[in-house]
Amino acid sequence: MSVTTARIMRPDDANIVGNVHGGTILKMIEEAGCIIGTRHCNTQPGLSQDRCAAQLARVERTDFLYPMFIGEVAHVSAEITYASKHSVEVQVHVMSENILTGATKMTNRAALWYVPFSLENVNNVTEVPPIKYASPGQEEEGKKRYEAQKMERLETKERNGELLMPVSAPDRTTKEPYTVGFSQSSLIHLVGPSDCTLHGFVHGGVTMKLMDEVAGIVAARHCKTNIVTASVDAINFHRKIMQGCVVTVSGRATFASNKSMEIEVFVDADPLIEAEKGKYRAVTAFFTYISLDMQGKPLPIPPMKLEGDGEQRRFEDGKMRYLQNKAKRLADKERQQ
Amino acid sequence: MSVTTARIMRPDDANIVGNVHGGTILKMIEEAGCIIGTRHCNTQPGLSQDRCAAQLARVERTDFLYPMFIGEVAHVSAEITYASKHSVEVQVHVMSENILTGATKMTNRAALWYVPFSLENVNNVTEVPPIKYASPGQEEEGKKRYEAQKMERLETKERNGELLMPVSAPDRTTKEPYTVGFSQSSLIHLVGPSDCTLHGFVHGGVTMKLMDEVAGIVAARHCKTNIVTASVDAINFHRKIMQGCVVTVSGRATFASNKSMEIEVFVDADPLIEAEKGKYRAVTAFFTYISLDMQGKPLPIPPMKLEGDGEQRRFEDGKMRYLQNKAKRLADKERQQ
Amino acid sequence: MSVTTARIMRPDDANIVGNVHGGTILKMIEEAGCIIGTRHCNTQPGLSQDRCAAQLARVERTDFLYPMFIGEVAHVSAEITYASKHSVEVQVHVMSENILTGATKMTNRAALWYVPFSLENVNNVTEVPPIKYASPGQEEEGKKRYEAQKMERLETKERNGELLMPVSAPDRTTKEPYTVGFSQSSLIHLVGPSDCTLHGFVHGGVTMKLMDEVAGIVAARHCKTNIVTASVDAINFHRKIMQGCVVTVSGRATFASNKSMEIEVFVDADPLIEAEKGKYRAVTAFFTYISLDMQGKPLPIPPMKLEGDGEQRRFEDGKMRYLQNKAKRLADKERQQ
Repeated sequence: MSVTTARIMRPDDANIVGNVHGGTILKMIEEAGCIIGTRHCNTQPGLSQDRCAAQLARVERTDFLYPMFIGEVAHVSAEITYASKHSVEVQVHVMSENILTGATKMTNRAALWYVPFSLENVNNVTEVPPIKYASPGQEEEGKKRYEAQKMERLETKERNGELLMPVSAPDRTTKEPYTVGFSQSSLIHLVGPSDCTLHGFVHGGVTMKLMDEVAGIVAARHCKTNIVTASVDAINFHRKIMQGCVVTVSGRATFASNKSMEIEVFVDADPLIEAEKGKYRAVTAFFTYISLDMQGKPLPIPPMKLEGDGEQRRFEDGKMRYLQNKAKRLADKERQQ
Repeated sequence: MSVTTARIMRPDDANIVGNVHGGTILKMIEEAGCIIGTRHCNTQPGLSQDRCAAQLARVERTDFLYPMFIGEVAHVSAEITYASKHSVEVQVHVMSENILTGATKMTNRAALWYVPFSLENVNNVTEVPPIKYASPGQEEEGKKRYEAQKMERLETKERNGELLMPVSAPDRTTKEPYTVGFSQSSLIHLVGPSDCTLHGFVHGGVTMKLMDEVAGIVAARHCKTNIVTASVDAINFHRKIMQGCVVTVSGRATFASNKSMEIEVFVDADPLIEAEKGKYRAVTAFFTYISLDMQGKPLPIPPMKLEGDGEQRRFEDGKMRYLQNKAKRLADKERQQ
Repeated sequence: MSVTTARIMRPDDANIVGNVHGGTILKMIEEAGCIIGTRHCNTQPGLSQDRCAAQLARVERTDFLYPMFIGEVAHVSAEITYASKHSVEVQVHVMSENILTGATKMTNRAALWYVPFSLENVNNVTEVPPIKYASPGQEEEGKKRYEAQKMERLETKERNGELLMPVSAPDRTTKEPYTVGFSQSSLIHLVGPSDCTLHGFVHGGVTMKLMDEVAGIVAARHCKTNIVTASVDAINFHRKIMQGCVVTVSGRATFASNKSMEIEVFVDADPLIEAEKGKYRAVTAFFTYISLDMQGKPLPIPPMKLEGDGEQRRFEDGKMRYLQNKAKRLADKERQQ
C-alpha cells in the first residue's frame, strides 16, 4: 500500500536564490502521509467502525540531503511500514527530478506517525486495521521504533510544559547583532479553510511550513546570507489545532557551530472565538540551518553572542544535540560501508 | 514513460456546494502533461540539441464523467502516446479516490498536444525524440490523430480571426434575464510569477482555469443554481502568453438545450508594458455546463432569449455541435458493447 | 480609459462566518488601479521615454458600505480621473453581485494615487501623459484633490517620523483583557514572488491586505466576536518595499466608541540580504472595525482599559478623528438630500 504525489516547484515554493524552502517539502511529505494514513485507517472490511481522519502525531528527525530548485519536479512516495493498535508509521521518500537534464536525486527520507480520530466524535481515537509484513523481523523492527517514539513523546511533553513562558518580541533597535534577541522573530497566522482538512483540523504540514518560515527568518537575520534548512529534529504534535484559531509561531537561535545553527520554534494556538479555552502550546521543534553564498557554497556561521544563564544553558543543550547527531551520522555511515 | 501526480482537493478548489471546479482539474491535467512532455523532449541521448520547454498547443475535447468533491484525492496519470517531429501527444487519466470509503472513479480522460520550444531562443521549435510503440498499429493510429488535430487547428485559426470583436461588459440593469447580454461576463487577470513557468510562459493550465471560471459565472448567472462543467470542446492555443500581460477572459452563452448550456470563451492577451505590440486573441473554446440542485440532481436549463441574427446563428452552430457530440457519444457506446 | 475586473469570492477570501476580509477587497482595488495606472503611463505616442511601472503612493479614506460574502462576484471598475505631471488619480468602484439572486450592491468607492517609476532606473520618476477631461471644471476639481493630498502626504511624513518607536510584543499571560497590551499583535512576512510585480516591487495591495489582517486580529482579540472592517483612513506609502524584504506589520488599539474601534497599524520593512540599508518604516494607517454577532447584527465594543499617558493621548486623538469623520458623513448626507 503506497501513494506517490508529484508536482513542479514554482517561484512561490522557493527563496530568491531559487532554493525550495524546507517547509514546502515538509508540507508535501505530510500531504502524502495524510492520504495514505487516512486511506489505510478507513479500510476495515467486516468491522463496524466510525470513519476517521488520520492526524499527524509525530515526525521523526529529517535531513535535507540535497537542495531542490524551481522548475524541478518533486516526487513524494509514501508507504505504511508499521501499524500499532492506535497509530501507523508512514515512511516517505522525496526525489527531485530535473526534467531538462533528467538528473534525479533523493533529497529526503522521513518517517511520520499518524493517529486516527473518529469523524463522529472528534475526541475518540479509532482502531487501526493490521497490515501485512514481508517478514516477522520487519514487524519486530517496527515495534521497536514504535516503543522508542512513544517514550520520546512522553519525555518531550514534560519538557514542553516547562517551556511555557512567552518568547519576548524581537527588538532590533536596542539589541546588538548576533545576540539571540536580535534575530528572534514571531509571526501570527489566522487559520483559514485552505489550511485545514474537511473536518476543520489544521494540516500538520501547514504548521511545519509556518515553523520553517519563522526559523528561516531567524537564520537569515543572524547570517544575512542565503540560508537553507539542513535538518529538522523530531517534531511532536501534542495538541490539535482547529479552524478559527490564531497561531503564533516564534523562533529563537539556541546554538551555532561553525557550519550550522540551531533554532528552537514554538507554536501556540489561541482560539479566537471560544477564547475561554485559552491559549496553549501545540508544537515545539529544533530546525538546523546552513548558510550558503550565491553560488551555493557553504559559508561559516557568525558566532552567537550569548546573554544570561538561560541562553548559555540552551546553547550547551544545543551543542549536545549537535554532537549526538554528528556521532549518529558517522555511525550510520560506517554501518553502511 | 509515464508520470502520476496526486493531491487532496481543498475548499478553494471547489464551489460552495463542494463540487471541485472543472478548471482545477484542467490545471492538474496540464501540469502532468507539461512534466512528461518536457521530460521526454529533453531526453535525446547522443544529439546535441537545445534544452527545451514543452508548451501546450491543444487539448482535445474532454468530458467530465463524474463530479469530484472536497476531501477526495485526485490521481492524475499521464503517458506519451504519439510523437511527431515537432509535437507529442499526451494522454491523461484522472481518478477520484474517496479515502474514507475507498471508492474510486475515473472522472476524466484527456489528450493534449505539446510543442517543444528552445530555451536558448524562445521562438525556435526543437525536434522531438522518437518513442517506441507497442505495435505498428499503434503508431498508425497516433498518426491519424495527429493529422486530424493539425487540420482542425488550421481551421480554428481562421474562425478565430473572424471573431475578434470585443465582448462588451455585462449589463444587468438594462438587459432582460435569459438573454445573452444578461449573463455575458469577463474578468481580467494580471499575470504574475506564480502563473508562469521558469521561463516566463503562462502555464496552459492557468489559462484554462480562468476560462472555466468565466464560463462558470456565465452559467450561474443564466441558471441561478449550482452549475458544474460537463465538457470542454477542443482548445487550441494559437499564441503564447508571456509574463507581464493582462489577460481578458470573456464568456457568452451560445446554446442551451433542456439539459445543458454551451458557453463560448475568449482569451485576449494585452502586453501592459510593451503596449505597442497590441492586444491579441490567444485562445477560444466552448465549455458545456449542466445545472444541479443542492442534492446533485440535474435540473432543466432555462431557455435562452435570443436577440439579433448573430445570436441566432451562434445558437444554430451550437445546436449542431450538441447534436454531433450526442451522436458521437451514442456511437462510442454502441461500439463498446 | 477604464478597466473592470471581476472574480468570485472564495473561502480563503473570508473569515469563518463568510464575510469577505476588507484586505481582500483592498487588494482587488489596488490590482485594478495598478493595471490602469501602468497602462496609461506607458501610452506616450511620439515621445521617447522609459517604460515604467505605476507604484501606489496613496489611498484616500475608504468606507466599507456593505459586507460581501463567499460565492458573490466582486466587480471592480477603475478609471483615471486626474493626471498631474508625475502622478495619476484612479477612482475605483466595487460592486458585489449575488449571481444566484441577481442582487447587486455598491460596497466600496476608493481613490488611489500612483506615481510611475522607470524600469531602466528604479529611482527615476517618469512623466505622465496628459488625459482628456470632459470639462474644464473637471480638471479644476482634480487639481484641488491633487493639492490637498500632496499637503496631507507631507504632513503625515513628519508625523510618521515621530512615531518610529517599536511596538512591543503582545503578552496575554501578564496583560489584563481590554488593555492595549493584551490585544496588541504583530506578524512577520517574508516577501515572495507572488507578492510582487514583475520588477520586484511589492504590490501596494499586498501590503494593505497584511495590514488588515493584523488589525483584524487586534480587533478580534479585543472583542472576541465576528469583526469586520468598517473603514480605512488615508494610507500613504512613504517608501517602496522590494522583494527579499521581511515585513513586520504591527497593530494596536487606539480608540473605541460604543460602536467601533480604531486600530493603528505600522509596516516596517527590513532588507534581509542588503541588511546595511537598515529597517525602515514604510506605511502607517488607522483601520476602523465593528463587531457583529453570528447573524450579522452590530454588537457594542467592550470599553478599552487605558494605561499610561501615551495610550490616553492616542485615545483622545482617535476620538477627534472619530468625531470629525462622523461630522463629515453627516454633512455629506445632508448635501446629497
